[in-house]
Amino acid sequence: MVVELISVGTEILLGNIVNTNAAYLAEQCAGLGLSCYYQTVVGDNAERLQGTLQMALERSDIVILGGGLGPTQDDLTKEVTAKVLGLKLVEDIHSRERIQEYLETRGLVVTENNWKQALAPEGAIVIDNENGTAPGLIIEKNNKRVILLPGPPNELRPMFEKSIYPYLNELQPGVIYSKTVKICGVGESIAETMIEDLIAGQSNPTIATYAKTGEVHLRVTAKADSEKEARKLVKPMVKELKGRFGNSIYTTDTEVTLEKAVIDLLVANHLTVSTAESCTGGLVSARLINVPGASEVFKAGYVSYSNKIKRKLIGVKRSSLEKHGAVSSIVAKEMAKGAAMLSKADVVVSITGIAGPDGGSAEKPVGLVYIGCQVKGEVTVKEYHFKGDRNKIREASVSAALSLMRECILQYCSNVMFSDER
Amino acid sequence: MVVELISVGTEILLGNIVNTNAAYLAEQCAGLGLSCYYQTVVGDNAERLQGTLQMALERSDIVILGGGLGPTQDDLTKEVTAKVLGLKLVEDIHSRERIQEYLETRGLVVTENNWKQALAPEGAIVIDNENGTAPGLIIEKNNKRVILLPGPPNELRPMFEKSIYPYLNELQPGVIYSKTVKICGVGESIAETMIEDLIAGQSNPTIATYAKTGEVHLRVTAKADSEKEARKLVKPMVKELKGRFGNSIYTTDTEVTLEKAVIDLLVANHLTVSTAESCTGGLVSARLINVPGASEVFKAGYVSYSNKIKRKLIGVKRSSLEKHGAVSSIVAKEMAKGAAMLSKADVVVSITGIAGPDGGSAEKPVGLVYIGCQVKGEVTVKEYHFKGDRNKIREASVSAALSLMRECILQYCSNVMFSDER
Repeated sequence: MVVELISVGTEILLGNIVNTNAAYLAEQCAGLGLSCYYQTVVGDNAERLQGTLQMALERSDIVILGGGLGPTQDDLTKEVTAKVLGLKLVEDIHSRERIQEYLETRGLVVTENNWKQALAPEGAIVIDNENGTAPGLIIEKNNKRVILLPGPPNELRPMFEKSIYPYLNELQPGVIYSKTVKICGVGESIAETMIEDLIAGQSNPTIATYAKTGEVHLRVTAKADSEKEARKLVKPMVKELKGRFGNSIYTTDTEVTLEKAVIDLLVANHLTVSTAESCTGGLVSARLINVPGASEVFKAGYVSYSNKIKRKLIGVKRSSLEKHGAVSSIVAKEMAKGAAMLSKADVVVSITGIAGPDGGSAEKPVGLVYIGCQVKGEVTVKEYHFKGDRNKIREASVSAALSLMRECILQYCSNVMFSDER
Repeated sequence: MVVELISVGTEILLGNIVNTNAAYLAEQCAGLGLSCYYQTVVGDNAERLQGTLQMALERSDIVILGGGLGPTQDDLTKEVTAKVLGLKLVEDIHSRERIQEYLETRGLVVTENNWKQALAPEGAIVIDNENGTAPGLIIEKNNKRVILLPGPPNELRPMFEKSIYPYLNELQPGVIYSKTVKICGVGESIAETMIEDLIAGQSNPTIATYAKTGEVHLRVTAKADSEKEARKLVKPMVKELKGRFGNSIYTTDTEVTLEKAVIDLLVANHLTVSTAESCTGGLVSARLINVPGASEVFKAGYVSYSNKIKRKLIGVKRSSLEKHGAVSSIVAKEMAKGAAMLSKADVVVSITGIAGPDGGSAEKPVGLVYIGCQVKGEVTVKEYHFKGDRNKIREASVSAALSLMRECILQYCSNVMFSDER
């Protein structure tokens, strides 16, 4: 089946906001096995919205519209859709009650224009909005489906996940099931080469590659008559990928991020962690702390940007700075050692590098980054050469630091296991 | 004149990447006074791209296409555009030389398919690409303009800024000039209310409001026969806004971010800075350090997430934590004082709050954040109530911290000036 996405909002046409809804919906639809050939953005304008919707209905089976369901005169999506489909708008009592309740429990006054949001094209399936006043709508007519969703991402996403995803999944013959294999510390092109033969020979399941900063996600998707059968098709492929990528796979759980994988590993092994950052300026600690429950294992974060603070705050030797420079393997090592001593953490990651745009030289170019990781006294330092602007280099450094932490902790754990066994 | 944006790339249709190019181009075009009614995304498919381009040329004066200029067989944008416009592709010698030079100076091998990128529709204006091998193209025919840009944002943006913006600006009768007034510490709805009368009465110049996290940007745009005249129209409006928003305006320079404004203020007043963060986990230090030149003034960043580290690392009193809790005005104050003592910085910002999703209570709900700022021994603490999910609360806290720093430094400077004058 073919799906098409229409985002409604003058604020997108003016560039006031980035259209993250389209990316979200596109990824979800791809995961459902739906083909998507067009995404369109159109303003809050009845005539142009009407033309866009009519064209979409001609060339696609399902049209998903996001935005334009608000209470104001500007919000036209529902009205235009009803017109295009030749349906009357009628009040949905259940929605009216929900809107009243939603606003009243938040101490907000219900204004006359709020009731506009309780109107629905006759025969539409009304979807409750847990996070706002605009209900979602599914309208089926002439073997076409039009789905209307509220624009704010914190309303659109939970509604899609809870109600629209299952609806779309049921429409299709068979069941789609997918599993995402998340890989860190392996470059995109290397990962693609490693699965070239699998991609070439794929039919069911299929593998889709998603490159993130410092990570590659492989989504294995199968279609079958039942979820059980689809799972059966996915399983051997995931096993094959596990065989090929081994320890570089940090999870097969969609919800688990790299930082969560690191925190989980620390918690499971009763290890505490600290950070010592220079060029990343606190981004590694910020990502670790973003994991709920990080407080159990996170001890301290030190941001030592200048040489003076590297010496005074975390005990890097003046001689090391003078002889090797702040961006050097030895300074990364001393930062990790110093922060471990100060904070008494079991694991410490340290980062020193040149994020640019200035500060580079022929010998030490922009993008050169040293990352150290100490686990229970044992320090590993790696040298990296990242490309891109200041932000890209910083982001790549953060991902590499998390990967290295994971690698060193796993190494430590396997050594401990090995020595236990002897 | 009406402009239309077409993004070409199957990776956008699959949701692999967010379409930030469209937002960038839309904002630029709005700034140029061009009307944009449609944005479309289409895959690397000749037939569908052809249909989309033909339709865009029927309803718009200028069509900007981004993506699909790479060296592979999949990249079709140039070929399809030439076909739609009835133009032959011919080799551009200058581009061929540049591609060779670009690849060779980077030690890369020139492969046969690279030469595809040197082809241009006959009569096209070829735009050099400083950051890649695909040149940009401007094609004028039948009073329509088609502009082709490479997809990677780090190629598209500099090329647009340097070559396409001036080209589009010249197309229009008169000159567009705009100035952005950046405001912090004032909510969007309050800011909008404060300029309601100006917006209602606007014609030339116009004011456009852009809400960012913790900031509001007002862009004043005027059109006139010359830049000098346009500037003359913008100036009194900017003056009016300065009168209304006073010290809340941190810059009128497009390039200056809030963190840069804070760093500049520190440098100008010979003040050093440190940070003590809990719920933001290092995001404030990371933003400050992202400003080139921050090393001059940045002393140290402390991330103290747990109570124990708040005590041990930066000297928060056990009794304060027990009596008032970690998220309290007194703990924010002690964090600032402690970090100032440790690092000997003149200015210290401290943040402690509940970012959720857990940890909230009726008395201290999710979103409650205390931010402290000490300037030369004087501490100010403010209480904030932010809405949204964990990420939104963290981001809002970072912006509020930067705003508060700016406010406290300005206050300190004006006190110093005042005491000097006496």
